[in-house]
Amino acid sequence: MIQAVAWKGDFLQLIDQTQLPEKLIYLDLHTVEEVFQAIRDLQVRGAPAIGIAAAYGLCLGMRDFRGASRKDFLAQLQQRIEYLSSARPTAVNLSWALRNLQSQLENLPGGDAAELKTRLLALAIELHEDDRRRCEAIAAHGQEAVPENARILTHCNTGALATGGIGTALGVVYRAHQLGKNIRVYAGETRPVLQGARLTAWELLAAKIPAQLICDNMAAALMQQGQVDLVLVGADRIAADGSAANKIGTYSLAVLAHYHRLPFYVAAPLSTFDMNVATGSAIPIEIRNSDEIRKVFGKYPITPGEVSCWNPAFDVTPPELITGIITERGILSPPYSKTIEQTINHTMLAGG
Amino acid sequence: MIQAVAWKGDFLQLIDQTQLPEKLIYLDLHTVEEVFQAIRDLQVRGAPAIGIAAAYGLCLGMRDFRGASRKDFLAQLQQRIEYLSSARPTAVNLSWALRNLQSQLENLPGGDAAELKTRLLALAIELHEDDRRRCEAIAAHGQEAVPENARILTHCNTGALATGGIGTALGVVYRAHQLGKNIRVYAGETRPVLQGARLTAWELLAAKIPAQLICDNMAAALMQQGQVDLVLVGADRIAADGSAANKIGTYSLAVLAHYHRLPFYVAAPLSTFDMNVATGSAIPIEIRNSDEIRKVFGKYPITPGEVSCWNPAFDVTPPELITGIITERGILSPPYSKTIEQTINHTMLAGG
Repeated sequence: MIQAVAWKGDFLQLIDQTQLPEKLIYLDLHTVEEVFQAIRDLQVRGAPAIGIAAAYGLCLGMRDFRGASRKDFLAQLQQRIEYLSSARPTAVNLSWALRNLQSQLENLPGGDAAELKTRLLALAIELHEDDRRRCEAIAAHGQEAVPENARILTHCNTGALATGGIGTALGVVYRAHQLGKNIRVYAGETRPVLQGARLTAWELLAAKIPAQLICDNMAAALMQQGQVDLVLVGADRIAADGSAANKIGTYSLAVLAHYHRLPFYVAAPLSTFDMNVATGSAIPIEIRNSDEIRKVFGKYPITPGEVSCWNPAFDVTPPELITGIITERGILSPPYSKTIEQTINHTMLAGG
Repeated sequence: MIQAVAWKGDFLQLIDQTQLPEKLIYLDLHTVEEVFQAIRDLQVRGAPAIGIAAAYGLCLGMRDFRGASRKDFLAQLQQRIEYLSSARPTAVNLSWALRNLQSQLENLPGGDAAELKTRLLALAIELHEDDRRRCEAIAAHGQEAVPENARILTHCNTGALATGGIGTALGVVYRAHQLGKNIRVYAGETRPVLQGARLTAWELLAAKIPAQLICDNMAAALMQQGQVDLVLVGADRIAADGSAANKIGTYSLAVLAHYHRLPFYVAAPLSTFDMNVATGSAIPIEIRNSDEIRKVFGKYPITPGEVSCWNPAFDVTPPELITGIITERGILSPPYSKTIEQTINHTMLAGG
């Protein structure tokens, strides 16, 4: 299995996902600024992978801290966390992962700067390993949603390239295939950045899973013709009421699935849930540059140059359109405000 | 106003729409084979423009007919009609336009081959002028569907580039703008061939109509945010029950409009109605090559080369999702099987 994010002892190695599928290029990053840029420029993407990359980025950002003061160390840590979090405002895993490391460090009894530095790296590595295990658990629980011979429609990329393990929604797909369920996948190309066309298609081919790529606007016709059994997507942030922010186009699939009476599942680790956000309308949506639409891969113009574009990176699917949310603790069902709270509380009590 | 299709005395001139918006290139076509290729390769597109181009193509295909026999002339005519009709199997205007010319020629009392040849050209020119007038009438009737300050979402290209006049759905937009209604247009880019990004955006910029381009998968989020007042699209073929085949992605917009309780209008001339097709499921849908998705403009690869794609050129919107069908005889309302039949019969009786 490929690795989107890898810690190489004293630097961070990423697959440059803006170059796929044409070229498989590894980036060796040695500074927090390089990690910030890689996150902002989508060289690393996918909510969990961003969180892990940011955690290693934080280690790089603290490596050169000189002084011995615990207080000064934690102050610089706070600055670096704010800096890294600003690279992608919608991706909650990013700030979640960083704040999590922060609070664990702060709760360490005693320890000088050198000790905190060592501990920070250990926590980042633990975070990565933890994500790998979460992917495995999501993949296992998700099988309940995937019958034999299922034809699964997915969106964006939620696989090995997006996480520290086998993926979230695509991890469920990998596991179903490994279990011999004779599945078939339709991948939406996911305009404008084409993560489906570039990344998911690449992963599915590599794994030899029967798959076809479609343009995003073909999903409705595919459902109309009875070719889809379920929709399975990831999430970048889930509110306390179950509203799920995910790659633009996800909400469209949810409405279409609803109309065609198809199950619509979101697969995401509990770190995606943001209990500070009560409802979907409170989730900030990143509006990106028009050029992302006007030029394919920033290179090939497809419109008259002057045309204005509306380019939201995410949309929000309301809870009433979601059949179930597949997490590492099982599949959550409506009413989500209740099941999410129970799961989060139980997990916190259990220390998971 | 630009002219997508123009008869230049002894040849057909087309704007090569596969080159827009980068280059405005005119093609001078002197043979029926060249016209066949231009239609098949989408250099001319849009249901009415295809019909007009094919009619002129038929004139070019009969120009070299030697012999004086009326019977031989009509036999070759039949062959050329079948040939041209096969260039785009779903576009009913194509075969409609050609069969219409055929029956008018066959009904001419007497007349040898030379006379038929002259008459054929006159009929093609008449067909073109007739389409121009139909566009004007659709634009006028369509105003009933467009309130002041309307924010209109459209798909594909249905403007001057698609017809012999100002367009169908986009003709309604042009007229609303001319009338000072302070409208705003959202154009879906229309993957995979990007007619919205390339052609509609180009036309709207040229006409200085306030507009923004979106990726097709953003339409749902735009509606969710209350930014759309109505959806307005064209059609390539409409069945007797009101089912409308149009560019892939149209059905998706119809379902989304239904969910968001927005009016969804189809604008199309009566020549688009095919009374031989009872329901939408009987409309043949052209499945095009995977490369159209895999390579933007046939040039820029966006996927791993081996990936399989499902690439239907059209989808079918069922009558229950259509608020009204804007024709040159007024806006048809449900129940369409009744209103379509009445309109078609009345038009035939009136000789229109």
